[in-house]
Amino acid sequence: MDNKQSNQDLFSDSIEEESKISDRREFFRKTAALGVTALAGTSLFASQDDPAIMHHAPWGQKWGDPVTKNLYGMPSAYEHNVVRRYTQLLASGNYRASIAVTPIQESTGIITPNGLFFSRSHGGTAHVDPKEFRLMIHGLVEKPIVLTLEQLKRYPKVTRTHFIECPANGGQEWRGPQFNSLQFAKGFMSSAEWTGVYIKTILADLGLKPEAKWMLSEGSDNSEMGRTVPIDKVLDDAMIVWGQNGEALRPEQGYPARLLLPGWEGNLCVKWLKRIEFAAEPWYCKEETSKYTALKPSGKAIQHFYANEVNSTVVSPSPEIPWTDLQDGQRVEIEGLAWSGMGTITGVDLSFDGGKNYVEAKLKGLVLPKSWTRWSYMHTYKKGEVLLLTSRAMDDAGYIQPTVDEETSVMGVESVYHRNGVETWEVTATGEVNHVQIRS
Amino acid sequence: MDNKQSNQDLFSDSIEEESKISDRREFFRKTAALGVTALAGTSLFASQDDPAIMHHAPWGQKWGDPVTKNLYGMPSAYEHNVVRRYTQLLASGNYRASIAVTPIQESTGIITPNGLFFSRSHGGTAHVDPKEFRLMIHGLVEKPIVLTLEQLKRYPKVTRTHFIECPANGGQEWRGPQFNSLQFAKGFMSSAEWTGVYIKTILADLGLKPEAKWMLSEGSDNSEMGRTVPIDKVLDDAMIVWGQNGEALRPEQGYPARLLLPGWEGNLCVKWLKRIEFAAEPWYCKEETSKYTALKPSGKAIQHFYANEVNSTVVSPSPEIPWTDLQDGQRVEIEGLAWSGMGTITGVDLSFDGGKNYVEAKLKGLVLPKSWTRWSYMHTYKKGEVLLLTSRAMDDAGYIQPTVDEETSVMGVESVYHRNGVETWEVTATGEVNHVQIRS
Repeated sequence: MDNKQSNQDLFSDSIEEESKISDRREFFRKTAALGVTALAGTSLFASQDDPAIMHHAPWGQKWGDPVTKNLYGMPSAYEHNVVRRYTQLLASGNYRASIAVTPIQESTGIITPNGLFFSRSHGGTAHVDPKEFRLMIHGLVEKPIVLTLEQLKRYPKVTRTHFIECPANGGQEWRGPQFNSLQFAKGFMSSAEWTGVYIKTILADLGLKPEAKWMLSEGSDNSEMGRTVPIDKVLDDAMIVWGQNGEALRPEQGYPARLLLPGWEGNLCVKWLKRIEFAAEPWYCKEETSKYTALKPSGKAIQHFYANEVNSTVVSPSPEIPWTDLQDGQRVEIEGLAWSGMGTITGVDLSFDGGKNYVEAKLKGLVLPKSWTRWSYMHTYKKGEVLLLTSRAMDDAGYIQPTVDEETSVMGVESVYHRNGVETWEVTATGEVNHVQIRS
Repeated sequence: MDNKQSNQDLFSDSIEEESKISDRREFFRKTAALGVTALAGTSLFASQDDPAIMHHAPWGQKWGDPVTKNLYGMPSAYEHNVVRRYTQLLASGNYRASIAVTPIQESTGIITPNGLFFSRSHGGTAHVDPKEFRLMIHGLVEKPIVLTLEQLKRYPKVTRTHFIECPANGGQEWRGPQFNSLQFAKGFMSSAEWTGVYIKTILADLGLKPEAKWMLSEGSDNSEMGRTVPIDKVLDDAMIVWGQNGEALRPEQGYPARLLLPGWEGNLCVKWLKRIEFAAEPWYCKEETSKYTALKPSGKAIQHFYANEVNSTVVSPSPEIPWTDLQDGQRVEIEGLAWSGMGTITGVDLSFDGGKNYVEAKLKGLVLPKSWTRWSYMHTYKKGEVLLLTSRAMDDAGYIQPTVDEETSVMGVESVYHRNGVETWEVTATGEVNHVQIRS
């Protein structure tokens, strides 16, 4: 593999340079320096005898829809293929308690639209009447309360952008890739701008007793999902949220209110929330003993583990959106996502040879704690080349993604959860993309 | 009016303080200092004999929906009232070319969900077949091109969060408030995370000729919307965008591609884009001469004005979501939005007496250039008090919102566009909220 890719990264640099240009003369100087060759020749572009270029498009020859149509708007009908997809993986034979995964191969930026946010539940999506919603907060507090939704929403609001990830994301791969699909391999996660109240703000009002060391959160859905959280996380950044990307939570996300533990396992962020209790000892709820433990090679299981570890994947190209249309010599952006439940992404490396050699990718856009972070690398495509694209991310908690072998040597292959070994995507000589695993 | 509000802002300070707490002992010390009195007494909370507290909710007694339902999800049916609403204001008698406004009274954070993004067009919403989409870029460039959508999307991507605002937002109010509604008074705007390519990136590839001073952008919809942009803006931060909050642009936003000129009038951000041309002289397109000029008291009109000036409004309370449920002594958050098309919001002041005296509000969450910025002020509500809530924002371009009289003295009352005088919202003795105008 060619490890000199970093020297060819002119265009990526030029983007950064250009972003600082606000003066026309400077721009023309830069343009001249680039030599107008960054993209390939005319073969790239629509053919001049393409009828679509000059004919008057049918949609321009008639009135469009009035504004009175679709007062809650929907995507273009042409985007019908960009949807969540489902698998029985987490609840064999029962689509009520399984998972619908996000088409991250089509994602842009660090927001997942609410209609595409991944969904996992233990008893199906509950439809809560907000007038009937009550939230009880009790146990080791000076003043237990029961809040209506209106009362909950009167607390001072905070808004934070965080991913939520099922700890089983990628968990089907301990023994090797199962899905030749980015959506199924890594789409057990999404990201949103969440609005709600810090639990510490409520506790400042209620008075938490010093002996309180654990918090139970319980859902009102038919699974009565219960999970236990250590008090340090509660007092750090735990929130009760009712807003998601500027509107009410969606039913699949726990409408009207859910727990949000930034960066921690999605199942801990209990949906359709009805009760929060504080105690001196942890609970051992059904779902946190029957699931969400990790069996190690020793035969012992890890029980209390919470944060989703530093992780990353290439997003473009993908098996779903390959490079079969690329021309020889074309400049193309390799783009991916990185995330860590323990902090902020500090860097991402990209390998073209399955992890033997790495070059540094660039982080792009907003880089926020416990949030999806986009990364990018500009590549000059050579027709017929075969690549093994592997990414590895680092976070400010000091962690770096392990290799597959490093992770397996510690965790074995019996676990479902918390797999964050590096992912590899093969680009074939014809530009198809396959999900592979490199044992190193 | 009480100008000592700032001294009472303990809770707002405590939120900031709490956000730094990561140590339990520190938290208990803080809690003790607050005295567990920040919110009012038990009258605030759900009554103990409320049957909703203890009964088993109906949605918890049956299976929820399976994940196979709604692969593109929708809001809860209980949120049916949170929709765009329409007015014929901008196209009398024709709902095809008018405006649907965003329910900003229900908004949270700085993202508007795509289904609620405001929509304005001159010929209705076009439905473009992405396979038939072509974008021609020509005029004073070395290498004119025609791109398919796939080719356009191969350019290196950038993602930026920006509001888009119709310059007529609030423009019905030059002679006083017309709508006793936040949605209709200030909802001609929305905000999203946009993904696309900087036009300067494309131009670095095509070669812009030095004599190029203006850019035409033209839509493929039946109005063939055309607008002219000075080249300095093009080379600064103009983008062609195809991604909106993590998915494809919505049809109402110009699917599959629109122009985005961060901070500038929404109508300049041409939708259903089909053609970009560079020239030495400006165009005088139909819509930029028949509309989007401002008639001044002198009888002359301003033609080339672009950026939406610094602006703000209280969002909570609002006529739609008033304070009629508040208890005497209850701590309540007054929240608002501020935005500037010229830069970054640096501060917001809040008045309780219609602009005679101001206190400083806090900016909250992400503070980004040419983006919605949330602000907040914690208030102790006194039953029966009458307030005139006025906000004024400042930006890093050095501007501050004018009073109504300051703006009118310069602009008169014949314009529709670019109104950014301060807004005032009256809270009555019973907690109802009215849109009023204070002439000062």
